[in-house]
Amino acid sequence: MVVQPVLIDGEWTKSIGTATFQPTNPLTREPLPERYPVSPWAEVEQAIQAAHRVAEVVRGWPGERFAAFLDRLADRIDARSADLVAIASLETALPVQPRLKDVELPRTSNQLRQAARAGREGSWAMPTIDAASNIRSVLGPIGPVVVFGPNNFPFAYNGAAGGDFAAAVAAGNPVIAKGHSSHPGTTRLLAEEAQRAATETGMPAGFVQLIYRTSHEDGQRLVAHPLIGASGYTGSRSAGLQLKQAADRVGKPIYLELSSINPVYVLPGALRERGREIAEQFAISCLMGTGQFCTNPGLVVLQSSPQAEDFIKQVTDRFAAAPVGTLLGAGVLSYLAAGLKTLIANGATRLTGGLPGGGTGFCCQNTLLRVTGKQFVSAAEWLQTEMFGNASLIVVAETDDEIIAVTRALEGNLTGCLYTANDGADELLYDRVSLILRQKVGRLLNDKMPTGVAVVSSMNHGGPFPATGHPGFTAVGFPASVRRFAMLHCYDGVRPHRLPDVLRNKNPTGCVWRLIDGQFSQGDVG
Amino acid sequence: MVVQPVLIDGEWTKSIGTATFQPTNPLTREPLPERYPVSPWAEVEQAIQAAHRVAEVVRGWPGERFAAFLDRLADRIDARSADLVAIASLETALPVQPRLKDVELPRTSNQLRQAARAGREGSWAMPTIDAASNIRSVLGPIGPVVVFGPNNFPFAYNGAAGGDFAAAVAAGNPVIAKGHSSHPGTTRLLAEEAQRAATETGMPAGFVQLIYRTSHEDGQRLVAHPLIGASGYTGSRSAGLQLKQAADRVGKPIYLELSSINPVYVLPGALRERGREIAEQFAISCLMGTGQFCTNPGLVVLQSSPQAEDFIKQVTDRFAAAPVGTLLGAGVLSYLAAGLKTLIANGATRLTGGLPGGGTGFCCQNTLLRVTGKQFVSAAEWLQTEMFGNASLIVVAETDDEIIAVTRALEGNLTGCLYTANDGADELLYDRVSLILRQKVGRLLNDKMPTGVAVVSSMNHGGPFPATGHPGFTAVGFPASVRRFAMLHCYDGVRPHRLPDVLRNKNPTGCVWRLIDGQFSQGDVG
Repeated sequence: MVVQPVLIDGEWTKSIGTATFQPTNPLTREPLPERYPVSPWAEVEQAIQAAHRVAEVVRGWPGERFAAFLDRLADRIDARSADLVAIASLETALPVQPRLKDVELPRTSNQLRQAARAGREGSWAMPTIDAASNIRSVLGPIGPVVVFGPNNFPFAYNGAAGGDFAAAVAAGNPVIAKGHSSHPGTTRLLAEEAQRAATETGMPAGFVQLIYRTSHEDGQRLVAHPLIGASGYTGSRSAGLQLKQAADRVGKPIYLELSSINPVYVLPGALRERGREIAEQFAISCLMGTGQFCTNPGLVVLQSSPQAEDFIKQVTDRFAAAPVGTLLGAGVLSYLAAGLKTLIANGATRLTGGLPGGGTGFCCQNTLLRVTGKQFVSAAEWLQTEMFGNASLIVVAETDDEIIAVTRALEGNLTGCLYTANDGADELLYDRVSLILRQKVGRLLNDKMPTGVAVVSSMNHGGPFPATGHPGFTAVGFPASVRRFAMLHCYDGVRPHRLPDVLRNKNPTGCVWRLIDGQFSQGDVG
Repeated sequence: MVVQPVLIDGEWTKSIGTATFQPTNPLTREPLPERYPVSPWAEVEQAIQAAHRVAEVVRGWPGERFAAFLDRLADRIDARSADLVAIASLETALPVQPRLKDVELPRTSNQLRQAARAGREGSWAMPTIDAASNIRSVLGPIGPVVVFGPNNFPFAYNGAAGGDFAAAVAAGNPVIAKGHSSHPGTTRLLAEEAQRAATETGMPAGFVQLIYRTSHEDGQRLVAHPLIGASGYTGSRSAGLQLKQAADRVGKPIYLELSSINPVYVLPGALRERGREIAEQFAISCLMGTGQFCTNPGLVVLQSSPQAEDFIKQVTDRFAAAPVGTLLGAGVLSYLAAGLKTLIANGATRLTGGLPGGGTGFCCQNTLLRVTGKQFVSAAEWLQTEMFGNASLIVVAETDDEIIAVTRALEGNLTGCLYTANDGADELLYDRVSLILRQKVGRLLNDKMPTGVAVVSSMNHGGPFPATGHPGFTAVGFPASVRRFAMLHCYDGVRPHRLPDVLRNKNPTGCVWRLIDGQFSQGDVG
């Protein structure tokens, strides 16, 4: 029996563990041939020790070194696109085109290049100098970062190449990637490219490491280990909260992206003006990728009216008519089924769907549920249970006040959308809703669905708990996402030759922005 | 029996609770006459509800409004200096001059004015615009902030006027101040001035509220309440960790400043060159304010040599000869005594002091303890027990490697200092030590003691756990400290008239710095 090796301390080596697992082809529900190891604690500890050594070697390296690695990895991923897309599609059932080949893979290499640009340029680290007191500070690497990739983005959030990985490296940290068990083969190829890119660009052995799976207990020990700087985790709420608790107990930063139902409001004037158009947008957004996006719109809030009923009918018909996609795995299907059950037990009625099956492999009918505003408010906790997949809940409120009450009952989410009339009819209600919604979501949208997450500096892929662990951070967008994996290094009276280049009197590039005596400047001190 | 009122929802009102407490004069150990209430949960909840209402009213107000309030409060504090200094000295035994009148009070009003400047100017919020995708983001108020003030800075860290208060307000948040039980009268006067300043500058009733004490359980409910945005806590590790656990469980940011022993290294060359001078600096720094500073140097690391022995003798003589100061209260004295006991039980030997008494009121002899490097490493957890007050531990290592081992055994601290020779003799050892120490402290100093905390933009009053809860944040310095009390607000496709001013195409002031399409600019979009 061949078991795939782990990547520890710069070498692809046979795992010291004996337990293994196989990924499953979601379309056939059959195991795929490769076996992957479950790493025991001693192996995790090896990775930690190696990452710690590496962190001490690369501390103080200029951003250019990390940028060169990131750029090389981006090139390598682009060059190996065919292999990557093929195995990812096999392991996830996500379509080769356009999703994997034309969207997610280019996004992934683009993210790496943006991270490289941020790391090279250096302003992300907010160098700050007070000349008179000779106190200087800059964000510096936090230490080895553990990245837990999720199931739903085999490339763009992968532990060995995704957004958290790119941000952690741009901040100057080695990474221990924890692959997701549903697509270990994809993660292996990405880590191969990362390892090659590391060698080619002179990074120390162990700069990128990969383990595929650990016990839950070992995962918790990992994020809480004294030599770990921080962790990034994208995945289910329950596992994420356990990691958070372990990390919080010892004050180790952990950045989580857990769950989000992403409320969409279609206010009365918008329904009147263009209800059918919005119904189409919604159905597309909700079913895209079989609904398996962090920003999938899982909740629609309407106000009772004939137009609302027409909207609901339009969406219901579209859901019933649309082909049923394949889910990422058995776990996703059972989690979705459990969510549906919870909502129905709490009063939601079925408009369409609701049963497993209807397509190929792991799948569930496109499902639309409905509750009243009153019902939602009275069972808000349960009716906000995430239905990760091709399912959504429509809330029909009677009055403006009931819409407000629904909004106040919302948990933290990544996004919140408001569709309003173009003729100004919805302005008052918009103001009332958005005042509350603004504090409950990381990204507030107007007149568009939330499923697109542009990788731009202003993006916030974050939001209040339980969408994430802290509402001040974003997992997407440079330079902001880089700052998560940094600590604030202050130098007080430190002799000039011992300062990082970026804190010396001379601006090292003439380009990096620094706050000097309270003024932003690209110049030198004095 | 007169019981002082609490400040809830804009009114000084009689507490609904029945339990009360009295502060103690540390010099006489006698209770002071005023009685203060312990607020029951229903009162805390009233404060939360009021703060929540206020947060919705002031959301979207320009920074100028908060700045005007902060400036007014600063002026009022300066104007009431005599009253404030008198009561603070009575409650804390800290000397009127220079400490309270000439140092801490001016620092406090200066901090408020710096916070006002940051709030007014607006760049702290990092407005970011991507024009092509019409995505825009800015840090916005996080919601009502609870500030728990510590015992050791009755003004500068006070819940109703100190650094966390100023930062929370500059970010646009109402504050619920939790006064420290050791100086409720000082806090009451500061809150009176805050309330007056709020009224005079048109802030809504309840913008600043004050409670004096709650049960521990209610404190934990408070920081975890769904309507609270974040909390700031400066104080003991044990109480702070309980609050942290409660807040972490529900994903509420809490910024802690817990404990720190602030290691000072005097490397061999520096000992040779100027050991006596450094011994004097150290003794002054350690005994200043009876050692009750967050950045008090509680640990000195030396390498064994005749010069080291001379240094130790110098410090010992100075400690023995210096007058014994009065501690802030009975709790501080018993905490210090417990710390001494722990260190001695773990092998530390007494060089001088070690017993309660020697001065007036609550006090303990100036105390110096000593261990070997080997001892320190083998009982590192216990020998790092904080001795908050006029006590310090000297570690004498045999070799460079033992100094490194001591450094690796350190927990997170606010500061770390290295004294080195001017002739270059210590450079290699400096490099080895600072590589490790850099990751363990927020502020690294050369050739100076850590007790001065300049309020400048580059200051980091923070550091890795357990000094604080997250190594990326600072409690002192503007604008950085303001960002702790903010959440990231992203606007995706939001119609222009609904955007905050600072995210519209036109730069609202012509001065605020924005990241527009990846470039820092004070200009307009397009």
